[in-house]
Amino acid sequence: MTFNRLALAVCLLLGFAAISVNTASAKDTKEATKQAKAQQLAPDIPSFVLDNGMQVVVIPDRRAPVVTHMVWYKAGSADEPPGKSGIAHYLEHLMFKGTKNVKSGEFSARIASIGGQENAFTSYDYTAYFQRVTPEALEEMMRLEADRMENLVLRQEDILAERDVVNEERNARTENNPGSLLREAMNAALYQNHRYGIPIIGWQHEMNSLTKQDAIDFYDRFYTPNNAVLVVAGDVDAAAVRELAEKTYGKVARRAEPGERVRPSEPTPRAARRVIMDDPRVSTPSFSRQYLVPSYNTAADREAEALEVLSEILAGGSTGRMYRALVIDQRIASNAGAWYQGGALDSTEFGFWGSPRPDKTLEELEAATDQVIADVLKDGVTQAEVERAQNRLIRSAVFARDSQATLARIYGGSLTLGSTLEEIASWPDDIRSVTVEDVNAAARKYLQLKRSVTGFLRPSPAQEG
Amino acid sequence: MTFNRLALAVCLLLGFAAISVNTASAKDTKEATKQAKAQQLAPDIPSFVLDNGMQVVVIPDRRAPVVTHMVWYKAGSADEPPGKSGIAHYLEHLMFKGTKNVKSGEFSARIASIGGQENAFTSYDYTAYFQRVTPEALEEMMRLEADRMENLVLRQEDILAERDVVNEERNARTENNPGSLLREAMNAALYQNHRYGIPIIGWQHEMNSLTKQDAIDFYDRFYTPNNAVLVVAGDVDAAAVRELAEKTYGKVARRAEPGERVRPSEPTPRAARRVIMDDPRVSTPSFSRQYLVPSYNTAADREAEALEVLSEILAGGSTGRMYRALVIDQRIASNAGAWYQGGALDSTEFGFWGSPRPDKTLEELEAATDQVIADVLKDGVTQAEVERAQNRLIRSAVFARDSQATLARIYGGSLTLGSTLEEIASWPDDIRSVTVEDVNAAARKYLQLKRSVTGFLRPSPAQEG
Repeated sequence: MTFNRLALAVCLLLGFAAISVNTASAKDTKEATKQAKAQQLAPDIPSFVLDNGMQVVVIPDRRAPVVTHMVWYKAGSADEPPGKSGIAHYLEHLMFKGTKNVKSGEFSARIASIGGQENAFTSYDYTAYFQRVTPEALEEMMRLEADRMENLVLRQEDILAERDVVNEERNARTENNPGSLLREAMNAALYQNHRYGIPIIGWQHEMNSLTKQDAIDFYDRFYTPNNAVLVVAGDVDAAAVRELAEKTYGKVARRAEPGERVRPSEPTPRAARRVIMDDPRVSTPSFSRQYLVPSYNTAADREAEALEVLSEILAGGSTGRMYRALVIDQRIASNAGAWYQGGALDSTEFGFWGSPRPDKTLEELEAATDQVIADVLKDGVTQAEVERAQNRLIRSAVFARDSQATLARIYGGSLTLGSTLEEIASWPDDIRSVTVEDVNAAARKYLQLKRSVTGFLRPSPAQEG
Repeated sequence: MTFNRLALAVCLLLGFAAISVNTASAKDTKEATKQAKAQQLAPDIPSFVLDNGMQVVVIPDRRAPVVTHMVWYKAGSADEPPGKSGIAHYLEHLMFKGTKNVKSGEFSARIASIGGQENAFTSYDYTAYFQRVTPEALEEMMRLEADRMENLVLRQEDILAERDVVNEERNARTENNPGSLLREAMNAALYQNHRYGIPIIGWQHEMNSLTKQDAIDFYDRFYTPNNAVLVVAGDVDAAAVRELAEKTYGKVARRAEPGERVRPSEPTPRAARRVIMDDPRVSTPSFSRQYLVPSYNTAADREAEALEVLSEILAGGSTGRMYRALVIDQRIASNAGAWYQGGALDSTEFGFWGSPRPDKTLEELEAATDQVIADVLKDGVTQAEVERAQNRLIRSAVFARDSQATLARIYGGSLTLGSTLEEIASWPDDIRSVTVEDVNAAARKYLQLKRSVTGFLRPSPAQEG
């Protein structure tokens, strides 16, 4: 329900013909960055704001007669009131239950009848709805999506039936999945104050008591045009989108003022935490470690970009340090890697993971991971590693350009996570400007055990006492 | 700022002449309990409610010409809005800054001038103010306390100066005390959803941004007579207290409706957690373990009383199982014990602790503690242990009767934590009715590692990476 590397691949529409490989020195890079920044300050992504405050972004993509239509609300599970976990996701489900003008299920049936696709997703920081249809159907999608922004009707029978559906979703994804349960427990241990410590889908006991009124309250507070971003990607032009948007979304009343998105922030982490889950359903033991780090939205200077490069140096497939050390050289792990989740409105995580080979223990795997980290902290990364990582990251961004839906997600996600179009546009330059010193400084600042939680998932039965 | 064994010693005014030693069998006890209950349903503690909803309890104690005057608000740190940790305690400080009618510091100066004592304290679930003065000064105390219930004046200079004071309090108690920092981190790891995971004094970074408006909001929401309990203990009679209360507190307008106290509750615990703090300021390593358990207010049947008895069996000074096993027999620990914090509006903790002897490790101490627990879970406790524990608990309650201030605290604390006067009165009987089976069942139900957090405090410097 969240996705990695939000910012990845965001440059793609901006005419970066010569993005692929960067072999320039840091100094040259800096100069190149300046020039590129100058070009990008007015990126070629039409964007405007309707009178009711709704932001609209148009991403031209004329390769095929198809459009991706997405509405993003700046409201996710971390915006839920205390005790109401799961309401953001539950409301996402209820949004398909009809309006004053459209019967329950009719919107989805209409999309199916014209051969379109649709989906919706809820994250910590946003909730989004999208359809992928032919350009002729865009106006109808906009009319229907605008309609459910203000005219949602919740019937008691839908409320109860859909609560069963989301509970079943939790059962399938979490309750029956020890790895998911461990991740929940690790998040709860990592976040001491922020609601990122509470699962997006909700705690089971709280989901069970969510009411129609809870859904209405969340809807009335956050589902207002001034809290939404419309992203239209595809075979359309901006003028036409503006006209359609004004005819549809433009008629929706601004009915709430959600204001600035300020959530409780994390205290300075003081102590290393560990979470151990023993479950007979586990077949393969696994190790994971997460550190509390800044996101693109909260980081100072280039720290997020430095962490992105660091994760690529550590993870980067079969040449990454984790895989090379643990799987190839030491033969401790059957698989291992690292990741950075840069897309978050507030603090976020830098993670390591691995599964031990059958003849090795989680403790050995952890010690080997700690050695990989210790090597980075002591000797640092190399210039060659940084450049390879930068090239891979920027190249991935180019590849991502190929998917209209991915592009629309990147824009919608980044904008609801606090980025501007300019920041999205400058991402490749920002990645390219990261130096060896930036990476080493970020690693030393953030990869400290007291900032972390370590998870062990073990196949043995739960130990009592 | 919280206190243990709230319910302890609560029977004392109720004419329990023959409380001390109980050698009756479980069956006899049950019969005795029934008889005692019948007597206690109208315990001899005068209590009434003023027209504005303020509850008043009078505890006659004529041994000395002194009265304890306490006002308890049903509002503590767990009632704070998200992101405003520390506001309950900060407001407690600001309550001494004067009113429309009384200059800053004048209330305290007046108490000092008549040779009285005063204090205030903030807990997760309540905030209380008290003075101990001669009976002649009671009316004045009530007038001044009633005055600051509605007429508080907060000047900007006091706001900033007092914020420095509470920040300094946090520095002294917590920031400079690795044991406190570890306890904070353990609480944050134990409570995945409830605000008991957030320190009463507040997270440092949130305390720094508390404002005058935050204090006013908390005051206006909770400092209303219908959310307060007045406890007067000492050389007074109920009729006189009622007359004075009506003249003073009775004039305070009911200005808010805080409603039912419902906080986010804990999800089912799924995974054992560990918190490790390495700090060069630590001289002696220590071990602790806390399990999530019900409180007197949340427990079904006699589970809280059973946990109370269990903690006495495990802790009970030099004869308790923990001390006997770890300190005397195995010589692993220099000290060790167990505890149950029964007084809480919501879930609470059952804990174990110990310090290893210089030649032993925390791991050895933990293993030995786990063995003590495993023995209880496997073989159970004995009838003789239960009876000794019951006798000790009830005898302690008799001793506590000797302190007027303790009594007033027990009544005020219990009433703000959801107990009725009848429940306070029946505590000794409830303890006495606990059986071996109750204790074993509670131990097996709650002393499971997945419900726990384990803490290691180590003297070595923080490990990096």
